[in-house]
Amino acid sequence: MCARTGGPLTALAVVFGAAVAFAPIPRITWEHTEVQLARFHQPGIFNYSALLLSADADTLYVGAREAVFAVDTLNVSQKRHEAYWKVSEDKQARCAEKGKSRQTECLNYIRVLQPLGTTALYVCGTNAFQPACDHLDLASFQFLGRHEDGKGRCPFDPAQSYTSVMVDGELYSGTSYNFLGSEPIISRNSSHSPLRTEYAIPWLNEPSFVHAEVLGGSADGVEGGDDRVYFFFTEVSVEFEFLSKLLIPRVARVCKGDQGGLRTLQKKWTTFLKARLLCGRPDGSLFFNVLRSVFVLRAPDLQEPVLYGVFTPQLNNVGLSAVCAYSLSAAEEVFARGKYMQSATVEQSHTKWVRYSGPVPSPRPGACIDREARAANFSSSLSLPDKTLQFVKDHPLMDDSVTPTGSGPRLVKSGVNYTQIVVDRTRALDGTAYDVMFVSTDRGALHKAISLEGDVHIIEETQLFPDREPVQTLLLSALKGRRFIYAGSNSGVVQAPVAFCGKHSTCEDCVLARDPYCAWSPAPAACVALHQTESPGRALIQDMGGEVSACPASSPMPSPPPGSSLSCLGPGSSSSPRSPWPASGSGPDGRPRVTLLPPLLSDQAQRVPAMGTFHLFCQATGPADAHVVWEKNGRELEACVPVQTLALPGGGAHVLSWLQDAVRESTEYRCSVRSSAGSQASGVRVTVLEPEVTPQEKWTRELATWRAVAGEHGRLMQSWRKAWESCNKDTF
Amino acid sequence: MCARTGGPLTALAVVFGAAVAFAPIPRITWEHTEVQLARFHQPGIFNYSALLLSADADTLYVGAREAVFAVDTLNVSQKRHEAYWKVSEDKQARCAEKGKSRQTECLNYIRVLQPLGTTALYVCGTNAFQPACDHLDLASFQFLGRHEDGKGRCPFDPAQSYTSVMVDGELYSGTSYNFLGSEPIISRNSSHSPLRTEYAIPWLNEPSFVHAEVLGGSADGVEGGDDRVYFFFTEVSVEFEFLSKLLIPRVARVCKGDQGGLRTLQKKWTTFLKARLLCGRPDGSLFFNVLRSVFVLRAPDLQEPVLYGVFTPQLNNVGLSAVCAYSLSAAEEVFARGKYMQSATVEQSHTKWVRYSGPVPSPRPGACIDREARAANFSSSLSLPDKTLQFVKDHPLMDDSVTPTGSGPRLVKSGVNYTQIVVDRTRALDGTAYDVMFVSTDRGALHKAISLEGDVHIIEETQLFPDREPVQTLLLSALKGRRFIYAGSNSGVVQAPVAFCGKHSTCEDCVLARDPYCAWSPAPAACVALHQTESPGRALIQDMGGEVSACPASSPMPSPPPGSSLSCLGPGSSSSPRSPWPASGSGPDGRPRVTLLPPLLSDQAQRVPAMGTFHLFCQATGPADAHVVWEKNGRELEACVPVQTLALPGGGAHVLSWLQDAVRESTEYRCSVRSSAGSQASGVRVTVLEPEVTPQEKWTRELATWRAVAGEHGRLMQSWRKAWESCNKDTF
Repeated sequence: MCARTGGPLTALAVVFGAAVAFAPIPRITWEHTEVQLARFHQPGIFNYSALLLSADADTLYVGAREAVFAVDTLNVSQKRHEAYWKVSEDKQARCAEKGKSRQTECLNYIRVLQPLGTTALYVCGTNAFQPACDHLDLASFQFLGRHEDGKGRCPFDPAQSYTSVMVDGELYSGTSYNFLGSEPIISRNSSHSPLRTEYAIPWLNEPSFVHAEVLGGSADGVEGGDDRVYFFFTEVSVEFEFLSKLLIPRVARVCKGDQGGLRTLQKKWTTFLKARLLCGRPDGSLFFNVLRSVFVLRAPDLQEPVLYGVFTPQLNNVGLSAVCAYSLSAAEEVFARGKYMQSATVEQSHTKWVRYSGPVPSPRPGACIDREARAANFSSSLSLPDKTLQFVKDHPLMDDSVTPTGSGPRLVKSGVNYTQIVVDRTRALDGTAYDVMFVSTDRGALHKAISLEGDVHIIEETQLFPDREPVQTLLLSALKGRRFIYAGSNSGVVQAPVAFCGKHSTCEDCVLARDPYCAWSPAPAACVALHQTESPGRALIQDMGGEVSACPASSPMPSPPPGSSLSCLGPGSSSSPRSPWPASGSGPDGRPRVTLLPPLLSDQAQRVPAMGTFHLFCQATGPADAHVVWEKNGRELEACVPVQTLALPGGGAHVLSWLQDAVRESTEYRCSVRSSAGSQASGVRVTVLEPEVTPQEKWTRELATWRAVAGEHGRLMQSWRKAWESCNKDTF
Repeated sequence: MCARTGGPLTALAVVFGAAVAFAPIPRITWEHTEVQLARFHQPGIFNYSALLLSADADTLYVGAREAVFAVDTLNVSQKRHEAYWKVSEDKQARCAEKGKSRQTECLNYIRVLQPLGTTALYVCGTNAFQPACDHLDLASFQFLGRHEDGKGRCPFDPAQSYTSVMVDGELYSGTSYNFLGSEPIISRNSSHSPLRTEYAIPWLNEPSFVHAEVLGGSADGVEGGDDRVYFFFTEVSVEFEFLSKLLIPRVARVCKGDQGGLRTLQKKWTTFLKARLLCGRPDGSLFFNVLRSVFVLRAPDLQEPVLYGVFTPQLNNVGLSAVCAYSLSAAEEVFARGKYMQSATVEQSHTKWVRYSGPVPSPRPGACIDREARAANFSSSLSLPDKTLQFVKDHPLMDDSVTPTGSGPRLVKSGVNYTQIVVDRTRALDGTAYDVMFVSTDRGALHKAISLEGDVHIIEETQLFPDREPVQTLLLSALKGRRFIYAGSNSGVVQAPVAFCGKHSTCEDCVLARDPYCAWSPAPAACVALHQTESPGRALIQDMGGEVSACPASSPMPSPPPGSSLSCLGPGSSSSPRSPWPASGSGPDGRPRVTLLPPLLSDQAQRVPAMGTFHLFCQATGPADAHVVWEKNGRELEACVPVQTLALPGGGAHVLSWLQDAVRESTEYRCSVRSSAGSQASGVRVTVLEPEVTPQEKWTRELATWRAVAGEHGRLMQSWRKAWESCNKDTF
């Protein structure tokens, strides 16, 4: 079945995508039943939103609602440990009294899952709107019961956004600070130097936190400064105005060495600066202003980290997503040398943000304490002059924007809402490095895409979650021999290999996949994963251009088997030699046996729009009692299906049946030709293109639709009847 | 052919549309070859952009490049008169010297074609970047050679936008005033009181003029004021800011009685006010900010005119269009009682527009001189106080917006760029009034849509122009018995009836069209146009809900003809009585004749995505030499098409052939089964869904596509070969 879905017709679906703007169609789609995906789900436990790899990449820690699990990274269905952290009855009751839902909101959603050295995990949960943190001892896999106040580390409300990163044992987090979720905060939870953002619109304006990561410093090739912690979020723009609130994606950063100000900005960041993160076409016609996910790609052969972001538009988002990539230095440049914005009051009650063009105090406001600053006797942020501190307090927003490398998106895809991204840098057989983007959707799928000759190629789509629920978290393990993608959703965790090379059964199929992970090995005649091959020798065949000529020779055109009547019709060939219809094959007992004739059902695989009509044909020869049975999703069809039966000389029969149908969901069909001398069957999956409607719209439209279909049915039957009458009017 | 395109499968295409957001699919598509459309084109003449109906609706005046024509409104291919207005060699040379193209720009594009009483037309043209106007005498159909200066009435550049309307012999126009096109102007060209707009950004900021029309006054039920002239345009917003220039649709109006100010606003409008014209979802998720076309619908049963607008988005326009409708009073209300906006200077160099909340002078700035004003001794704009005039000079922009009736679009359609709209209000058989929207596309098509039970129903799509060129102008003639749509493009003028009722050959088809113009007349058994029927009696059948039960009874299920083997397959029916295969029919000479067997090719009509793969099947019985010939768009197929031939008892043969193809454009297929005893053929049109790409994108993608197809072909053939081998392995 799977080979069919990934077969010739699916491959031609690429052709379909090619003609529609922004709709690169995955070359292959794997349904969750077609590929082996390890799954982890604990009965009664939901919201598997936090994923963390152990230092040795041996264990995957999973934070879910009221529980943390340790599972095997090689097979996530193998649970090693579990620890529960349930909300007490008492707390739940008090939470419910405040008007929150006892069944959904007044529970403990694990939102922070960070390593604390090598022996423990730092875990925070919403804890029925009373965020709390605890230490999970890895040896005993038990909570130590510390019950630290989680305010400012973890949101109160499970519906609110959050992000965090552990740096040198101190937790940096972006979340909301109060019950209502109205006070956003980016903070460092540190015993000796806790810091936070000002509570002011210019600092944070209704942000949705997306990601936090430590970047820069010597490890990332940034000279002379200490590490920076980057925060990525979408917030309401102060600098732009439209009819409704305009969202804008931001990148903000603070310095690890920040200790706050002495008087001004006391216990507040003195290094908080933020800038716009642009993703769109340079001509402004396409603009993606909602950041959904960020992944930082590091690789030994990359001079600096690459920041990948997944975006959707706020305006006119008729299902549209994009991936943009940024160099770390582009962001550093804006913070280090960019212009600031400043606000001006207009007519007492309005504010306008414009480029600040006055003198900038020294040391530069928001800069990390670097060698130069130390040389000027500013040893820490505590010794910074008041002028610098007051300036950064009033001017946290840069006027310059961080623009993507290549000045536009790496990938634009219509008809889909992307949720998360991870990127794996891998080398093809010829040594070329490819950044393979794994992007998840809000309907449970994973797209794997690369840039090929300036164009984007979606190698495959994998349906990770059968219920098409949104993918909430993606995690990549890129260790050699352990290259896996882990995806978390409300219902569980799914583990997928980075490639399904083995599913390609021919050299052509393997090469045409244009998957840098896969190459054809002629010796065992198998498509193998390069990263699982000990010595990728010269024998392997891979061509990222999709050129299959290197594949072992096989007759490219079918030579009809002797005696068959499969002939080639073309101009002038109409008088080609004819063979009589092949008599049905016969078994050892001499009785004709059932033989399906081409095109087999499996050759008729197709992708159809929801409720779009299509035909399937099934024909066979067999004994006189041969008859056709159609199955739809495993159940015998009750509808009337036309069938023609022809008695063949020698006691056999030829049957031909055709089915017309229109389906709302991808559907399996099976045509069985049964007889007293055995049966033959062929099956096919008709894949429905993703519908793009809200449930409400769908419902009203479907009502109208079904009524129309019912009305049409009679006519269709009549037109067939007329055809029959006309072709039968002479004799029978 | 046409009946097929509008047949059962096209009807099911509605189903497809239903599942895709914003993609209502036309129920029927008429190719230009399928319907009778009168065309007018004069060899060598292009750019048929100006259309005007004569007062008696008997003659259509057509303004093209360097020519004006008079054609018959009942048949536009009947030319009555022609008048040429060519640019002199000398002028062309001077124009070319200024860097303009001699072949394209330095010609005379007719841009103004307005009635001048009943005896003449007022005509203006770009005249090789020296706009000029002339009178065309209708009796002699000759230009009078007046050569008036056309500056301010007609643009210099044929690429620039323009609009005009003749009111009481005075031309009101919106255009650009200079060679560069940088000075926009809305003016009245009047001998006794010429008026114009201030040349200032707050008045007009890079506008694209769309439409002008006289509205209001007693004729349109607006009390106590004089007529207003409304202008519709898109301009660069001053009040909003984003990364790039934000466009905004505007409605502006001036009063007919305006005579300018005495000192302030001397010879300028004292009544120029403009407001935003909103079209989008109230939640702000969909926002259409580029106005493309306006049509003002008036009808005896409408209390006031309805303003219909066609919009596209500026941002993220992946092929998206909308139609919004406004009541005249909604616009009047904003101008008469709305708040004004005012600008404030920020930091010397920036401007911000905010709501003006100070005192408003009296008489109200921008108001027409009404009874109240006259009673207060302001008999004309010349006597208005300076404070009022200065205020309107500084505050031409309203803060309130004109919002659509129903608060959202009437129609949103993805995958299309609408260009023009006309609306006809018509009554269905039951007396219900429908506003039928005729909307043209930039690819030469016309959509006809109505609102049905809150949902939009695109009754049909008509391909007006075979070359898919943009429709530039639409004109409706709504006279009883003469209901036509006239469409102008670069290549010519096309005339289409408002409905193609006669194309529906069955009662069910006629009713299912849900076309308010069409009803089924059982007596002649024909689908008739209501407006062409003398007495739409009770005998007619129409149901706008698509309920076909009122249609004359006809057997709803096919009863298989005696002796045929069309049987109904269902559970338990597998042992239903079998009949032998029908021997092929024989002719009078006893020789078997060719008989096509169902499903006929014509029953396999389908709509496919561009380059999406599909199958067609063709089978027949006939004499032994029967063979299949496939034709594609009238040419015999040169590709290899599989065919199976079976020798039947009695000397006949059964042939089965199946074609797999993928096409870029809608394509006609024909399967002919030929033999020495005659031939039979069946044809089908496979319709390609509109691609949504720019030519550039298409080109690069197609390259990749074709390479992929070429690579896949071999595999497809191999898989068929394998199937053959497996089914043949026993004997043959």
